[in-house]
Amino acid sequence: MRDRLLAMAKRRGFIWPAFDIYGGLRGFYDYGPLGSELKRNIINLWRKYYVLGEGFAEIDSPNLSPEDVFRASGHLDKFKDLMTVCTSCGAAFRADKLVKTENADSLSADELWEEMKREGVKCPECGGELTKPEPFNLMFGTHIGPKGKGERAGYLRPETAQAMFMDFQYLYRYFREKLPFGAVQIGKGFRNEISPRQGLIRLREFNMAEAEIFFDPEEKDWPGFEKVSDENVRLIPNTGGELLMSIGEAVQKGIIRSRALSYFLGITKKFLLDAGIDEGKLRFREHLRDEMAHYADDCWDAEVLLSYGWVEVVGIADRTDYDLSRHMEYSGENLKALRKYPETREIEVTEVIPDYGKLGPLFKKDAKKVAEALISLGPDIAGDITVSADGKEYTVPESAYRVEKVKKKVSGEEFIPHVIEPSYGIDRILYAVLEHNYKEVIDDGETYRILSLPARIAPIKAGVFPLMAKEGMDKKAMEIYEMLRNEGINAFYDHSGSIGRRYARMDEIGTPFCITVDYQTLEDDTVTMRNREDKRQERIPVKEIAKKIADRIDGGIL
Amino acid sequence: MRDRLLAMAKRRGFIWPAFDIYGGLRGFYDYGPLGSELKRNIINLWRKYYVLGEGFAEIDSPNLSPEDVFRASGHLDKFKDLMTVCTSCGAAFRADKLVKTENADSLSADELWEEMKREGVKCPECGGELTKPEPFNLMFGTHIGPKGKGERAGYLRPETAQAMFMDFQYLYRYFREKLPFGAVQIGKGFRNEISPRQGLIRLREFNMAEAEIFFDPEEKDWPGFEKVSDENVRLIPNTGGELLMSIGEAVQKGIIRSRALSYFLGITKKFLLDAGIDEGKLRFREHLRDEMAHYADDCWDAEVLLSYGWVEVVGIADRTDYDLSRHMEYSGENLKALRKYPETREIEVTEVIPDYGKLGPLFKKDAKKVAEALISLGPDIAGDITVSADGKEYTVPESAYRVEKVKKKVSGEEFIPHVIEPSYGIDRILYAVLEHNYKEVIDDGETYRILSLPARIAPIKAGVFPLMAKEGMDKKAMEIYEMLRNEGINAFYDHSGSIGRRYARMDEIGTPFCITVDYQTLEDDTVTMRNREDKRQERIPVKEIAKKIADRIDGGIL
Repeated sequence: MRDRLLAMAKRRGFIWPAFDIYGGLRGFYDYGPLGSELKRNIINLWRKYYVLGEGFAEIDSPNLSPEDVFRASGHLDKFKDLMTVCTSCGAAFRADKLVKTENADSLSADELWEEMKREGVKCPECGGELTKPEPFNLMFGTHIGPKGKGERAGYLRPETAQAMFMDFQYLYRYFREKLPFGAVQIGKGFRNEISPRQGLIRLREFNMAEAEIFFDPEEKDWPGFEKVSDENVRLIPNTGGELLMSIGEAVQKGIIRSRALSYFLGITKKFLLDAGIDEGKLRFREHLRDEMAHYADDCWDAEVLLSYGWVEVVGIADRTDYDLSRHMEYSGENLKALRKYPETREIEVTEVIPDYGKLGPLFKKDAKKVAEALISLGPDIAGDITVSADGKEYTVPESAYRVEKVKKKVSGEEFIPHVIEPSYGIDRILYAVLEHNYKEVIDDGETYRILSLPARIAPIKAGVFPLMAKEGMDKKAMEIYEMLRNEGINAFYDHSGSIGRRYARMDEIGTPFCITVDYQTLEDDTVTMRNREDKRQERIPVKEIAKKIADRIDGGIL
Repeated sequence: MRDRLLAMAKRRGFIWPAFDIYGGLRGFYDYGPLGSELKRNIINLWRKYYVLGEGFAEIDSPNLSPEDVFRASGHLDKFKDLMTVCTSCGAAFRADKLVKTENADSLSADELWEEMKREGVKCPECGGELTKPEPFNLMFGTHIGPKGKGERAGYLRPETAQAMFMDFQYLYRYFREKLPFGAVQIGKGFRNEISPRQGLIRLREFNMAEAEIFFDPEEKDWPGFEKVSDENVRLIPNTGGELLMSIGEAVQKGIIRSRALSYFLGITKKFLLDAGIDEGKLRFREHLRDEMAHYADDCWDAEVLLSYGWVEVVGIADRTDYDLSRHMEYSGENLKALRKYPETREIEVTEVIPDYGKLGPLFKKDAKKVAEALISLGPDIAGDITVSADGKEYTVPESAYRVEKVKKKVSGEEFIPHVIEPSYGIDRILYAVLEHNYKEVIDDGETYRILSLPARIAPIKAGVFPLMAKEGMDKKAMEIYEMLRNEGINAFYDHSGSIGRRYARMDEIGTPFCITVDYQTLEDDTVTMRNREDKRQERIPVKEIAKKIADRIDGGIL
């Protein structure tokens, strides 16, 4: 079935192998006209949930980033797979994919090597000897700027998230310094897979949609929680077993740890079903402790059942304050938020108070630096003190400072926000939607293919046909086609072959409606509108077509 | 003015310097929430013209491509700037930017070097000596796949166009083998600028929207030509002078060489004005012969007048059959189209006809290869012939083939299509729209800022305010805000400060409408709707708000 679906997808213009005339390249695909439209519709549906629905701020940052970013994010150190190379043919493989052990991706290089030897693993391509696994960084590296002074090491981002952390202060001000708030980004991610297979499931360049929601860690709640608490979900907690229960119950029983994280599980379920995922083939699985990404404290994956098995399509991770803390540490910038007190408070603090009248004559132009260095030592000092500033040492006599209790007014306390991140793999979702909606029916000995896409994400909303391409019916059909496109409705004009053949072409690519112009149209300006799912036809006035379709596309999404 | 516009754009969330916490990086920007929405609206407007309007097929291909692509496209050899480096401080520069000569970008390395010496050019940063200019390739290079056997050199694409050439056969079949047709792509382009300045005008990673329209070179016409022939445009032909005339006249007088190319000039003008470009600051300039990209035969730029001077925002190039020919040559694949004869023709051709009965016993399993090699020599052969196949040589006796005239039925003749490419720089257009619509008014000693964006591209369509945040007005305003967002209209809720202050905030970011909920609303369910441009207010029922705004956004685009 998968092969026939993929053949249809290629023939009709959903996906094409990229660089095909040069023999193709694993891990890269082109979206053709229908695939590109389908992808855009899925993304727009996502935007309806996250941007228009939740009011999150969408940003758009570069794919290329300088190395500093990934030193801070941890990707430079930790975004690696263990690679083994064949000593005979030179082919490279992810070592964890070659052994039979469960959870092999959590083994160390040494453990994997032992396991490979125990199982007697050889090169899958030529049977040759394999090397001991070594870490291979999965980021694509490049150089930004000309060689020499201006050059900086750069990488293609492995996720869109980092820009939202780096822009935290801009976003915080955009939201008038109130938490929680969310930022989103929809764009490309890159991962230099060692040996990708599995079509759209494992790409080297992929489309993702990510939201980073910033919380006060003392209030990991979510205002809209009640909207999803009754949703039933299939859960695989990392303590084992499979449960079917409402989100509300899962939170109450402590199976999902925070109401905030559970809210995004609920939204994810609603979004995936709206996009056309089969509810019976959807589950949420909690990551095992040693399976988690280096930045995550808790993570639930939405997984869908495909011909490849259960495949992760969304990850919902609690990244805690990991990213903001790391970027603070590496950049030296303040990425904290302020927890305001209900009223300004007066507090008593013990502080070092430099005596500038004495420091000035002693240290001249360095006095300010010395004073700052002195203050930074904190109040637990006494006597003559040696401080260092810009690599030089200065001895400050006891008489040049005092330590005192002072009263201060403070409006709140600073803290590093926590982040919950729902991260969606758009290509995988698109592929899953195709698999879950592709059907073949044998009719009169012929295979009839139907793609039951929800109207809102179907690439073409309406086929427009003249019964025959003559006597003005073709002209009228073309007018309707143009009218629909001017209204923003992607229509397709077709006058070749029988009406049945034209219906079949539209059914195969998931077009929900077909409009036929016939002799009666020329008399009373009505057409037949045929519905893909129930095959029923109704007679409607031409001027109502656009509205009828628009209602069916947008109805009831949020 | 530019500095104040940029300060506003940063403060309000249009554009932020990327990687700011790490000191930023020239040539990279983040779009904030408003910029990202503005960009998307500009792109959607473009899509209305090119995808829905013209019926072109949108595809979406990877940013990363293997080296083969750019060997064929010519970018590996020719996508270079001449770089000079300071021998003292190591800073690098585009050499043509340092000399005073006009059209310095068309000089060779030697010519530039002579000119630099003549002018006595020194390092602009430290006054040091500069090196002789050397070509620097502007593509970002990387490696795809693991080191060793699987590794391929790759580059980030400098334009989106190549995928549309490589996918030609897929596209040709998608359009049922009929020319002309167009394909478009909207995505990122990358250019490793030596020393970028000028904010959004010269980025290392930029957004582009490109259309490749494939023609039969014998018919470089365009069906919709009449739609634009009356449009007046300001033209700077490369023969000198400046002309103001209609597109129809320009074609008739041979100033623009093809009706097809001129059609896209007309569409470009309409699109740019719809996006908010000032017609008085728009012109079309023909490239000088030595200014053209390596693939172009003729090229007109749409240029807009900015604080930086005249800046190219769109290039409309006649790429002829350059790209398809090159890809045919480098890939060995057939990228031709068929010009169908009105009726099938019978033609007489002279052909080599191998005698398989003799070749079989002679060459066994190689017989087929030998026959193919023989045929490929063409009909001008006689006697015993030595052919080579897969590096081996075979001698074919005279008796094993004959050369004969045969009659064949042919339905048409193959040809390589020509391509016209309108290529839009989205970031530049976005920036130009900001500059052309940003106004400052001094009112009562205070600077009042207005961004007169067309409603269709404004990031936020409506501000929604309660007169005061009490007595149910805030709740009602929030309901209206949510209703609008559910209808897909990006609204913004605000209850802080005076109504005047809230209007001012919306005017500054280009929001066309403001809705105020007051005491009367609670009685009769009407609100005031205030128009940014004329400051007029009207009283309208709540249930009409969405429709009124939607009409103003989409009205009259195509």
